[in-house]
Formats: sequence, structure tokens, C-alpha cells
Amino acid sequence: MTSQLADQPGAPRSAPERGEGPGAGRALRAEGSPTRAVRVGGIEFGGGFVVIAGPCAVESAEQIELTASAVRAAGAHLLRGGAFKPRTSPYAFQGMGEPGLRLLCEAGRRHGLPVIAEVMEPAQIPLMLERVDVLQVGARNMQNFSLLRALGRMRRPVLLKRGLCATVEEWLLAAEYLLDGGNEQVILCERGIRTFAPEVRNTLDLSAVASAKLRSHLPVVVDPSHATGHRDLVIPMSLAAAACGADGLMLEVHPRPSQALCDGAQALTPVAFEELMRKLRPVLAAVGRELGAAALPTAAAQSG
Amino acid sequence: MTSQLADQPGAPRSAPERGEGPGAGRALRAEGSPTRAVRVGGIEFGGGFVVIAGPCAVESAEQIELTASAVRAAGAHLLRGGAFKPRTSPYAFQGMGEPGLRLLCEAGRRHGLPVIAEVMEPAQIPLMLERVDVLQVGARNMQNFSLLRALGRMRRPVLLKRGLCATVEEWLLAAEYLLDGGNEQVILCERGIRTFAPEVRNTLDLSAVASAKLRSHLPVVVDPSHATGHRDLVIPMSLAAAACGADGLMLEVHPRPSQALCDGAQALTPVAFEELMRKLRPVLAAVGRELGAAALPTAAAQSG
Amino acid sequence: MTSQLADQPGAPRSAPERGEGPGAGRALRAEGSPTRAVRVGGIEFGGGFVVIAGPCAVESAEQIELTASAVRAAGAHLLRGGAFKPRTSPYAFQGMGEPGLRLLCEAGRRHGLPVIAEVMEPAQIPLMLERVDVLQVGARNMQNFSLLRALGRMRRPVLLKRGLCATVEEWLLAAEYLLDGGNEQVILCERGIRTFAPEVRNTLDLSAVASAKLRSHLPVVVDPSHATGHRDLVIPMSLAAAACGADGLMLEVHPRPSQALCDGAQALTPVAFEELMRKLRPVLAAVGRELGAAALPTAAAQSG
Amino acid sequence: MTSQLADQPGAPRSAPERGEGPGAGRALRAEGSPTRAVRVGGIEFGGGFVVIAGPCAVESAEQIELTASAVRAAGAHLLRGGAFKPRTSPYAFQGMGEPGLRLLCEAGRRHGLPVIAEVMEPAQIPLMLERVDVLQVGARNMQNFSLLRALGRMRRPVLLKRGLCATVEEWLLAAEYLLDGGNEQVILCERGIRTFAPEVRNTLDLSAVASAKLRSHLPVVVDPSHATGHRDLVIPMSLAAAACGADGLMLEVHPRPSQALCDGAQALTPVAFEELMRKLRPVLAAVGRELGAAALPTAAAQSG
Repeated sequence: MTSQLADQPGAPRSAPERGEGPGAGRALRAEGSPTRAVRVGGIEFGGGFVVIAGPCAVESAEQIELTASAVRAAGAHLLRGGAFKPRTSPYAFQGMGEPGLRLLCEAGRRHGLPVIAEVMEPAQIPLMLERVDVLQVGARNMQNFSLLRALGRMRRPVLLKRGLCATVEEWLLAAEYLLDGGNEQVILCERGIRTFAPEVRNTLDLSAVASAKLRSHLPVVVDPSHATGHRDLVIPMSLAAAACGADGLMLEVHPRPSQALCDGAQALTPVAFEELMRKLRPVLAAVGRELGAAALPTAAAQSG
Repeated sequence: MTSQLADQPGAPRSAPERGEGPGAGRALRAEGSPTRAVRVGGIEFGGGFVVIAGPCAVESAEQIELTASAVRAAGAHLLRGGAFKPRTSPYAFQGMGEPGLRLLCEAGRRHGLPVIAEVMEPAQIPLMLERVDVLQVGARNMQNFSLLRALGRMRRPVLLKRGLCATVEEWLLAAEYLLDGGNEQVILCERGIRTFAPEVRNTLDLSAVASAKLRSHLPVVVDPSHATGHRDLVIPMSLAAAACGADGLMLEVHPRPSQALCDGAQALTPVAFEELMRKLRPVLAAVGRELGAAALPTAAAQSG
Repeated sequence: MTSQLADQPGAPRSAPERGEGPGAGRALRAEGSPTRAVRVGGIEFGGGFVVIAGPCAVESAEQIELTASAVRAAGAHLLRGGAFKPRTSPYAFQGMGEPGLRLLCEAGRRHGLPVIAEVMEPAQIPLMLERVDVLQVGARNMQNFSLLRALGRMRRPVLLKRGLCATVEEWLLAAEYLLDGGNEQVILCERGIRTFAPEVRNTLDLSAVASAKLRSHLPVVVDPSHATGHRDLVIPMSLAAAACGADGLMLEVHPRPSQALCDGAQALTPVAFEELMRKLRPVLAAVGRELGAAALPTAAAQSG
Repeated sequence: MTSQLADQPGAPRSAPERGEGPGAGRALRAEGSPTRAVRVGGIEFGGGFVVIAGPCAVESAEQIELTASAVRAAGAHLLRGGAFKPRTSPYAFQGMGEPGLRLLCEAGRRHGLPVIAEVMEPAQIPLMLERVDVLQVGARNMQNFSLLRALGRMRRPVLLKRGLCATVEEWLLAAEYLLDGGNEQVILCERGIRTFAPEVRNTLDLSAVASAKLRSHLPVVVDPSHATGHRDLVIPMSLAAAACGADGLMLEVHPRPSQALCDGAQALTPVAFEELMRKLRPVLAAVGRELGAAALPTAAAQSG
């Protein structure tokens, strides 16, 4: 009966049996228990270290194909690429929409890469479910509770970005909206917080990664591209993330960053991405981890 | 044709004729032009100073009736009261939902007060349109672009709260989503920003009010209850808001704050609210303004 | 014996009788007691509203004379002007030093205005004591404890600016260093805090003014020039400060702001300063206060 | 002649030949040039990775001896320990002062560890120069320009902590005050910035480390103890610092953290410190670095 009530947004609810607050939450790690892995195809978030890579926005068939091919060759596990883009201004490029989503998924399939894309509203969920392996909730939507409730009713992995000025507790409680609906496949993503510091787009808060890992059993990945906004800082921050216990990275890669329609300054070239992957391996080994196994090459990828 | 495209979220769009960015935006004040009033019943945001008052959340018929009666007697212009509450935790009181909305509207009608309530998702809009005079977008939804697009297609006043860490430019660009859809009835609301300062719930940023008034023709109101989180600070901050050019206030009033189901520490008692209204008049006069005319008492209010 | 120990910086000390922490501090207001005035010549901080005005930095005899004359005519009570300027870069203009201090004091004397200037290190105190009526501690030195200890041993009024990211508690505890040394003539000055907000130089935190007034018996003034960094915002923020209970203002005024050697964008012209003084009176009256009586014209001023 | 003027604080100065601003500063790294090492005894900041360890404050002969012995055995290079403590409240423990300094230095000598201690005002410099190998400027004094000028005239290494809300540019410009005085032995130290995030004492900003390393030739170390305030976060943040290119760490270690007179919650036990040193080696190797050679054991250390 509780679950029925849960489906009615705003309905008065009694506190769950485990009590109120994050201390009692479903995201909470029991003392000594490990991170619970979230599986996407053959890949495990919370197992081997997972690398998500791709452009900020899907711009063309050629761009997404070049990117997918390059990041697959360098060892990425998932392909990212925005189709519906949340933009501060209504007059800025809003993404290609559904055609972009189709291009993303085709490129992913050709290269054996599961795909992740941002979902901005409940109405987009059915379309996303048909095509996308992981649904991303953007930082600006971290407390879009109706979106969270809707995704909590799904049984598809959700990557939940931390809000621009969300505390770790608020982030875990946002995850709780998903878990409370029965969707246990939640991946957290730290992407930098808004501070006074003017030299970076956001301030990457790696202590929040360590903190979230201590308190919760959810896997945590790091997006150093949005967090810094500067290509030069992406590699050092990626290595730092790996060293402090993150379960993966989410990176922007573009075949020609200077021509990117959005956020080009933070995108890695394919060459820099390959360099990062090479540097990542020994750091992971140093902390007793390793890169997750590559997704199995598909027939399409082999012939592509 | 542009307006058709605007209805398709995510569709690629060319820049509007007036150019990109807020400098070119519809929210922009032309040099020397005044604030464009937004009318709600007989009340004008941007004309006389407007006071919105009521509880954080509608809790019972008695509570909303007592509050409405008290704030009307003291001179408030609109009645507020949350029916659907966005809450950080899924296990906290989420508001009474539709029954709460009905109680709010009945109390408003009895006392001749137009009502304002928060809308959290596009699916709630039809219900809200039947009942509510002003639709509020909460701080956590300031960049919920699909909600903004949906409200931009309506022709009902929208009060847009500033996000917890939104810049003035981002706030005006969020308003632009509403204006771009053709809804010109937009009221801005400053409600404090998130800073390091631990003694207040948020830091009230009155320079953002002055700044928004300088750049834009939209009316701007101030919510000192959420901005401070402390009853003692609400009166001084309200007077400061009036002195620096705000067009109105949005205040939490509760007949028994200590028993409030949410945010009791920041709610004024009816007696304190009356004191505030008394102190407000001379400050407004000092800056050449006055309280807006009270809403005309309705038949219902007279017999109630 | 305690007071002897207090003179030895760093000496281990037992907690004072009143207990540790700001709750027990000498800056604390006893329930119901008023602000304790700090007297400077015939002027009372904490009595009538006090206006301090003058240039960011003393630049020349002509500049400070023009400014002093203009601000005196418009009703200012004290003359400010930096002689030793704390600058972020060692290669920026550092102020005229001692010659600047002499020019400031001569202009003050000619116009019957007590003067305030910033002291940057204990070694400058003797020179300052000869010339200056109020010693200012800048925001960057709010926790320069050896400077505070040294000033605590003086018996000259000190204006203590809030640090760029100091909490109200830290600000009051910095004042406690002065009070604990026996110097009871402490004036607090809010000058904006550092936040993410990019449109202003700092974010003026008027709730901290109301908060400091509630907790402490010290007078509190507001510096809207540094807080905003924009001339256009200085008047509205000054009126807001007056409305919320501040005891005075500290303003930058320059005869030709566009030629100022530092911070010209935030300096008022003499004409704008006069406008501000005119607008201030009714706002003060509205909150039951009035401008402090002008300093008595001195013989020098009358013949000047 | 310029250098003479530089000795007179506040004297008007012409811009240096290389132009104004950090872009022209002495801290700037020429394209392609390496970090310039700062030597302390046989240790090189900017060469092998350097670990500074010790208690927040020197509390007793036994405490500092136990700590020095433990950190030396685990491989630390320098001994830290506050003798003069900057404290927010004048009523809090202010450090043992000169006796504490003596205990620190004796312990360092016994164990062959150079020592670092904080200098709070120019008047303390002579005492410090007699005893201390590296002079530390605390975060609250980062813009205490008279202290910086005085230290710029010394020829002893200075560790300059980043201010609580200082930008990277302001931090480098504070270093410029030291370099401009002729003291080229400057080590930067990131210790966390003040943000809204309530779960940590400060937010460790590792992107500032990478950023400072890119722009400047100065060595940069990281203090994860103050940055996080939580013992549990110190090890992951230390590994992250090592991975992203920091030149060393500054850590709080206390033999019995629960009894520490200050900041016990963030101090490592000797056992945890040893664990950290063990985990650090492979991470450093992974990024092509190694721990600096231990300071040569002194006769005193061998017999201790």
C-alpha cells in the first residue's frame, strides 16, 4: 500500500520503517559492506573502473562516429553524448533532439559501447528507455523531484549528477528518491560545485567523492570536464579521482574541440584521451584497482 | 514559424532577431523605460508594493483559515501556501497535495485574496490553472527548462524564484524561457543564495534585486523568510528590501509557528506580521512608494 | 594578572570568568540593553546615523581637498581616505603613505571632519595615533591577531571590517580581541562577502548587520562601495542598510571617479553623494532615526 | 634603487619592467621550464615528494617527542608543530609560545627532521630565524602584506598557505610579495577553501594545485588535514594530491588525537600515518615520482 501512495506525488506519507533522514536511507552503506555494483551490459559500476567518454553534444553523424571509434579504441566503456541539452539561455543551441539520440545509439551499437544520455523531463523517459542504457539526471535537475520519482519507477540505471551547490546529504537524499521508488541502479556523479573561485568553471570536490563512498554503497564517478572547464586540468583531476577511490570517470572528448558547438574548452582530443587512459592504468593499480573489462566487441563494431 | 519551433523542446533553433544573450533578451529594460506591471486581479506587481503572505505549507482547514483572516486584516494582497512541497528527503512531509490546494483557494476566496502556489511539474499545470492566480516556480526548479517551457505557453502570471546559486544573468535567462514562449507575466523573486555563512539559512542578496531592477523591466519581490530562516531577521530584511526598490514581499506567516510542519523557525506570527506591515508603510513612503491597494473585499469575504 | 598575560601574545591563558566563546564575550548584548555608543569628537556611532565619506586612496592635495569640501557640504561626518593601501599585487599603486596621511588630516581639519584611515601593521600605530581619529582594520586583516592585540591596547576607536569570508561569529570574536585588550571603542563594518555571484565585487550581507546588532552591543556600519563595486548599486544598498538598522555608512566619493587611481567604478561623484544624503533622511526618519548632528565647524573650516 | 623603495612599505612604486599583474610576475613559469626546487637541508621541495608531519600544536615534551619519533620512523621529511597558534577566539588555547617552539626544535634535532612553524607577525621573525627551517604563513595571513614584505627580505624558505577564499591569482600575487623582496624560496600550500559544503571543514581544491603548477614554477604542497577536518578523508585526499602533481603533503599527526588540544578530529594516529606513507609510494611511482630521500639521520636521532 505504501508503494501505491508513493506513486501519488504529494500524497501525505508516513515515515518508512527505517526512520527518517539519510542515516536511515536506502543509500546507506552498512558498516563493512562493499559498494553494490550497478551493471550495464557486461560493465559493472563499482567493480572495475569505468570510463564514460564522448562529446558534450551530438552534432553530426560524422562527429559522433569519429568520437565513438576513438574512445572505443582507447578503452572507454560507455559512450556519452547530449541529444537534449539543458542550456542557460533559450537562444543557445539546445541539442539535436531525437535525431541526435538516434545517431548516438547507432554509433554506440557499431562500436559495442552502451550509451548514456541526459533525460530532462518525465515525458522523455519512454523514448529514452527504447534507446539508452543509462539515463543521466543533470546537475540542474538533481532536485527535480517529479523527474526523480518518475525515474524511481523505472528499472534502468540512472546516473545522478550532484547539484551545483548541493551538499553530500542532499545528493544522497536525491538518490533516495530513486531508491525509494524501487530503482536500485543508481550511480552518483560529482561534477564540481559552484564557489567563488574564478579560474575554473566549477570547483571539483573530491572530498565529496570520498565522503559519499564512506556513507553510501552507491558507485561514484567523477566528471572532471564540467568540474574544471579546462582541458589542461582534466588529466590531473582524473588521476586524482582515481587515486581517491572514485569508481569511474565521465569525460568529454571531441574530434575537433575548437569547433565544438558547446563546451569545447573542456573537451579532450582523442589523442589526449588516449594519453589519459594510459596514465590511468598505473594509478588504478597503485590503489588496488583496474580498468573494467572492455565491452565485448559486437559484430557491428568488428565490421565497422 | 519561430514560435512553432519553440514548442518543440530540444529542436535546433536559430538565434532570435534581437541577438543572443540576456543583453538582447525580452526581459531587458529599454533605457529609461519603467517596470512593466503584472496584474493579478486588481493588484499590480510593479505598481503599488505587494505583500504575499501565508504558511509554508497548508496543513489544515483551520490553519489556512486563521492565517488568511489574519494576513487579510493586516493588509496582505495575496495568499500563499504550499500544497505540493518540494522536500530534500522523500521521507519528509510532502504537502497535502490537491486537498491542500482546495483549502488554500477556498480560504483565499473567502477573504478576497488571490492565491499563489508552487507548481513542480508540467503535469500539475492544468490543475493549477483551474485554481491558482499566480504559479510559483521554486528555487530548485529555476533551471527546470521543460517546466519553464510549459509555463511559457500559458497566459497566467508566474513567480520565478532565483536558484540557490544562480547568477542574476542565469535568473534573467530563466525568465527568458517564459517570455520567449509568449508569457509576459513574469515576476522575479529573490530568496537568498547559498554561501559559506552558517548563521542564516541562505544569504539574502539585495544587490541582486537592485541589479535585476536596473537590467530588466520585470517586477522583483523578495522572500526574506527563506532567505534568512530566522523570524528575528525577517522584519529588518523586509524593510531593507522595500528601501532598495523591491516591488513586494513574500512572507511566511503561521498562526502557531512552533507547531508548523515545516520551516516554523522562519514564520512570523500574525502579530509580528501586523507589526511588519505597520513599519513598512513609512519606509515605502520614504522611497516614494506605497502599499498597493488592498484587493477588493469579495462577497464571500464579507460574509465570512 | 590576567590582563598582564593578555599582553604577551601566545601566552597560555585560562578561559575568562565569563566562559569561552562569543556567547560569553564582551561584545555580547545583554537582553534588552541598547547599542553602546562609540564617540569620535562630537559624533556618536550608535547614536545618530553616521556617514563616513572620502576617496578610496588619497591621491593629491587637490583631490582630497575637493572631496572633503564636497562631502562636508553634503553632510558627511567623517572623512576617509587610504594612505597605506593593501593591494593584491605588489606592483599596484600602494598609496601615498605618510604624505597622503598628512594631506588627509589637513583636509579633515580644514573642514571640521574627524578622519579615519587604515592601519596595516602594529609598527604603523604610533604614526596613526598622532593623526587619525578612527583606526580602520581592513577585511584582509580581520584575523591578523597580532594587529588586533596591539590595537586592543590602545584607547582609540577602531573600525573593524568583516573579513571576505568571515562568519558573524568570527567577526564578533575578532572584535573580542580588541575588547579583551581593554579597548571598548569598537565599530563593526560590513563590506560584503565573497560568493559565487559574478555581477558584484562582493555580496552585501545585510542580514549579518541585523544579526550582529541582535547579538552584540557594538555599532555596525555598512560599506556599500566595496560590497557592490558598482556606483549604480551604492544608493539602493545604502538605503537598505539604513532601513535594516545599520548605524552608519562608509562610502567612496571621488571628484572625478573615472580618473581614480583605485576602485573608480564604485566611487560616487559629489553630486551623487548629495543625492544619497537627501534620500537617506526620510528612510532614517521612517525607521525612527536621524542623521547624526554634523561635526561642529572648526575655525579652520570656517576660514577655509 | 627600486629595491630600496621596496623596503619602505607603502612607498609609491613604478611598475616593474616586466609589467603588472601575475602574467608578468616572478612566480611565473616560463613555457616548458620545470618547477624550481626549494632546498631545506638535504630535502628538495619540487624534487622528490616531501612529507611534513606533526601535531597541530605543540602541547608537551612527551607529545612532540612521541610524534617526531613516529613520523620519522614512517618516513616523514619535516616536523611541523604550532607554537604560536592563530585562534578565532582570544579565549581559546593560543599555543605554548616560545617554550613550545623550543620543544619542537629539540624534537626535530633529535630525529634529524628540519622543522616548520607558523610566524604570525614581523616581530616574531628573529626568534623564528634562530630556530626554524621553514617559516609558515597561515591562511588568515595570506594577505598580511606587511608580514609578507618582512619575510621577502629574509633568505629563509617560506611556506605560504592559500587564504580561505583566495583565488589562485591572489595566491600567486601574495607569493609575488615574497619574491619581489628577493626571497626566492617560496613553497605554496593548498589547505582548502571555504564553501557552502557543511560536511567538511573546508573544501580541498586540487584543481588549484594543478592550476598553480601550470602557471608557476613554485613547488606546491597540500594540507588535507585542515582541508577536510576529518581523519577518514585524509588518506584518500593525500593520494589524490599525489596523483594530481602536488610536490608534497603537510599532515597533522598526534599520538592520541582524542586528547589533542586543537583539531583532534583531523589528526592521524601514528599507525594511520604509517599506512598513508605505505599507500603513497605506489601512487607516486604511478605518476613517475618518488618520495624524497629521508633527511640524513643525525647522531642525535641514531642514539634516540
